[in-house]
Amino acid sequence: MKTFNIKVPDTAISEKIIDKIDNLTKPKGSLGKLESLAYRVCLIQQSLVPSLCNPANILFAADHGIIEEGVSVSPKEVTWQQLAHFSRGGAGINFLCDQHGFRLVLVDAGVDYDIPHGHGIIDCKIRKSTRNYRREAAMTPEEFDMAIERGAGIVENVYAGGCNVVSFGEMGSGNTSSSSMWMHLLTGVPLDECIGAGAGLGNDGQRHKRMVLREAWDNCPLPADDIKGRLAYFGGYEMVMAVGGMLKAAELKMIILVDGFIMTACMAAAAWFCPEVLNYAVFGHQGDESGHKKMLDFLHADPLLHLGLRLGEGSGAVCAYPILQSAVNMINEMDSFQKVAVTKYF
Amino acid sequence: MKTFNIKVPDTAISEKIIDKIDNLTKPKGSLGKLESLAYRVCLIQQSLVPSLCNPANILFAADHGIIEEGVSVSPKEVTWQQLAHFSRGGAGINFLCDQHGFRLVLVDAGVDYDIPHGHGIIDCKIRKSTRNYRREAAMTPEEFDMAIERGAGIVENVYAGGCNVVSFGEMGSGNTSSSSMWMHLLTGVPLDECIGAGAGLGNDGQRHKRMVLREAWDNCPLPADDIKGRLAYFGGYEMVMAVGGMLKAAELKMIILVDGFIMTACMAAAAWFCPEVLNYAVFGHQGDESGHKKMLDFLHADPLLHLGLRLGEGSGAVCAYPILQSAVNMINEMDSFQKVAVTKYF
Repeated sequence: MKTFNIKVPDTAISEKIIDKIDNLTKPKGSLGKLESLAYRVCLIQQSLVPSLCNPANILFAADHGIIEEGVSVSPKEVTWQQLAHFSRGGAGINFLCDQHGFRLVLVDAGVDYDIPHGHGIIDCKIRKSTRNYRREAAMTPEEFDMAIERGAGIVENVYAGGCNVVSFGEMGSGNTSSSSMWMHLLTGVPLDECIGAGAGLGNDGQRHKRMVLREAWDNCPLPADDIKGRLAYFGGYEMVMAVGGMLKAAELKMIILVDGFIMTACMAAAAWFCPEVLNYAVFGHQGDESGHKKMLDFLHADPLLHLGLRLGEGSGAVCAYPILQSAVNMINEMDSFQKVAVTKYF
Repeated sequence: MKTFNIKVPDTAISEKIIDKIDNLTKPKGSLGKLESLAYRVCLIQQSLVPSLCNPANILFAADHGIIEEGVSVSPKEVTWQQLAHFSRGGAGINFLCDQHGFRLVLVDAGVDYDIPHGHGIIDCKIRKSTRNYRREAAMTPEEFDMAIERGAGIVENVYAGGCNVVSFGEMGSGNTSSSSMWMHLLTGVPLDECIGAGAGLGNDGQRHKRMVLREAWDNCPLPADDIKGRLAYFGGYEMVMAVGGMLKAAELKMIILVDGFIMTACMAAAAWFCPEVLNYAVFGHQGDESGHKKMLDFLHADPLLHLGLRLGEGSGAVCAYPILQSAVNMINEMDSFQKVAVTKYF
């Protein structure tokens, strides 16, 4: 697999950042998470005057063979229909990208449909859908490596366009199942606790999903400690591309806005390859999907929003962007006590 | 006191709103709080195509006689210094108002300083600071009524300028103390549990604040059931003006974004006068100030953000505005399943 050279940000600048934040005209610490966020952005950018440039939401779409087993409420055709819909505008992620000035980058990572050209959907298709991992590996090791590389390539292009803050989204009926498998694999949380309602399964549906995934887990012939092998075995093309994208983004010192359950699973996988990637991650949203909180705890992540979103597409990450922008505006636009005639109070 | 005619929004339109939201191209309910917010905005505006126009943050500033008792880390002069600072830009609330397109309306409700004219600070001064309620009533009943009326007048003017969504902020060293007293009065939560660190008191400071406020409560000569009298006895001019402003905003069917602990106490007081006001309230932020969560629970409020802010000035309310805007954009910009070729999935 392609390797990534991700640096832990140099903390030599820490004291200067803290000093600047503590001398803004407010009681010390009174801007809460805006202050800790500003600190992190300054550290990543090694600057006391950070900036967010040309934000982009990269949305990877792919289909999942496991959907044959009835683990999702969304029929398979929804994947390509929604991808086409994103390209025309009018879907959930569109209004959020428009509101917050995000470029929406659409990528066909492995949709089971011939996506017509000329609609701005980037063709990175590995294969039309993964295979059904109840019976066989979802993808080959070669496909995994190829997906990592293509995901990284997309980020490279976005970065070349002047972007330094990126979120990742996904569309893929059945991908909460893969995410549950990854979560179980990476965190050791019991499989049942990693499985939830997805886009809207009822109790019976969830029971069935648990049964299918348990059987798939038990049937996997790979050794238990072959983490990379098992990521490929249970993965989705859109998810592996997101992992590659996250690793590349961190290598390029970009800020990574992490969306909900599925993208958190991707960040957990990225962190298994290179733990340093977490230094660049800002978690946008904690959803209600069973297990999301446990996976966030595993990553020591404290997301910005709790709005009960479970749409995917990057929506929770993009929704959180104005908070990140507020943190940056705070450190750039607020006066210091030294500059203005206000008694320092703390 | 001036009376307000606040209507409960007509729910005849409810079914149509729910139908529109449920037919947007997403799994039902998958946009979580954006959906419930959109529903509320539509109900308030009695429209399926709601809009947010000319948002304003009205910031009332005043001083508190109780500050003589050492209940706050902020010296008194910080009130006028910060008010002047807001008028020049560069304070916390300025970058947030700039970021989200809010008009910042600055009001001197009772600052203990001769605020010079010509800086855009509206003179509504009732008196230079309230009195020290450890020894006597903070304000007279007449002053209370006058503050209600002036607060309402400010909102009327903002509304006349085309604003339909308003937040309220405050600046006033010592005003978490008044808010704790109001909270105890209105909710019945034990006084100790209503008292916190304010802008940054340590343990000793908080113990002293508890002692002072307990004594002030015990010394108040008004009957326990004279709620309005006690609101005046322990209140602040900026807080009473905010109450008047909230009541007027609800009468005018404006959306009211509620800030942190102090503005939640004001909303609780407004709701004591007219419970219907709560139909127009969107709670922006839950801070860490002891008691805030209990007061929110008392009002059945579920705030949008939890960012550990404790700045006041309206910061938590303005910070939450993009979420409200997202809810409105969702219902106006997303396609319905009827319009586009996507299989309905839920």
